[in-house]
Amino acid sequence: MAATPLTLALYQPDIPQNAGSMLRSCACFGFEAAIIGPAGFPVTDRNFRRAGMDYLDLVTIRRHVSFETFQAWRAEEAIIGAPRRLILLTTKATASYASCDYGPGDVLLVGRETSGVPEEVADAADLAVTIPMRSGARSLNVGVAAAIVMSEARRQFPDLSPLTRRIDASYEP
Amino acid sequence: MAATPLTLALYQPDIPQNAGSMLRSCACFGFEAAIIGPAGFPVTDRNFRRAGMDYLDLVTIRRHVSFETFQAWRAEEAIIGAPRRLILLTTKATASYASCDYGPGDVLLVGRETSGVPEEVADAADLAVTIPMRSGARSLNVGVAAAIVMSEARRQFPDLSPLTRRIDASYEP
Repeated sequence: MAATPLTLALYQPDIPQNAGSMLRSCACFGFEAAIIGPAGFPVTDRNFRRAGMDYLDLVTIRRHVSFETFQAWRAEEAIIGAPRRLILLTTKATASYASCDYGPGDVLLVGRETSGVPEEVADAADLAVTIPMRSGARSLNVGVAAAIVMSEARRQFPDLSPLTRRIDASYEP
Repeated sequence: MAATPLTLALYQPDIPQNAGSMLRSCACFGFEAAIIGPAGFPVTDRNFRRAGMDYLDLVTIRRHVSFETFQAWRAEEAIIGAPRRLILLTTKATASYASCDYGPGDVLLVGRETSGVPEEVADAADLAVTIPMRSGARSLNVGVAAAIVMSEARRQFPDLSPLTRRIDASYEP
């Protein structure tokens, strides 16, 4: 049996191009995706579709109407023996993404391009990692940041999942 | 004296958002940038400016009208004792970006989002690296791919350069 794939979770995504780009990266790296609502755009958004291209059809996407339902999903997974560690990507962390050991089932969480995640969401994370930049630089694009950490996790687990899509009932293209 | 910064070179960039995003990543990682023309858009392009934001003012940008003038610049640098190794990012390489040792002065070269680089440009590279993906996946967004490799190089050289911009005469904002 293949190991449980890792998941990239987008907290209330606000920029469709970024979200589409992140789902493309999920397809390329064998990640599943979670979209934690409310999102700032519908999945029919033109820019979302353009950035995600046909890669959107290669990703298992779970949609959660709120952070609370996302947390409930994590709790259920833990009960059935598939705990989902929550790893927040944030410029406010001190630990480097490169020094983190990623494991099957891990969920990488990214915030909004404009404002990250609120404090209560950050507090719910098991771990927070950052991407070291030169001093004075503010932040990377969120889609770029997500891909950098996904690539490192993928490096640690070269064969996460084959290129197939598991249809999730909550996905409404 | 600080080590010679690394450079990200964009071969005939065709999508302004991607180019802007890559310059933002250059700012964050302390890379200089080279734009190898002809580009498919002017530097006044609205989408280029929006993706690059104020980070555009924090990057040293060299513009070369053609690949030939870019190669001439590399040759001149070698004469003055600052050789510029050319490392191509391509899905067609077999070596992983993570197994490459990056050095001061290295130039990472990315092609066009739509078509990569022509064969004669690929042949001019000293080295080609790829980002391992799951089998069947086509390619990452070029801006995402560039940032992944820049982050790895930055990990190997944590203190490449301070956050200042060296004005280059060839840069016309």
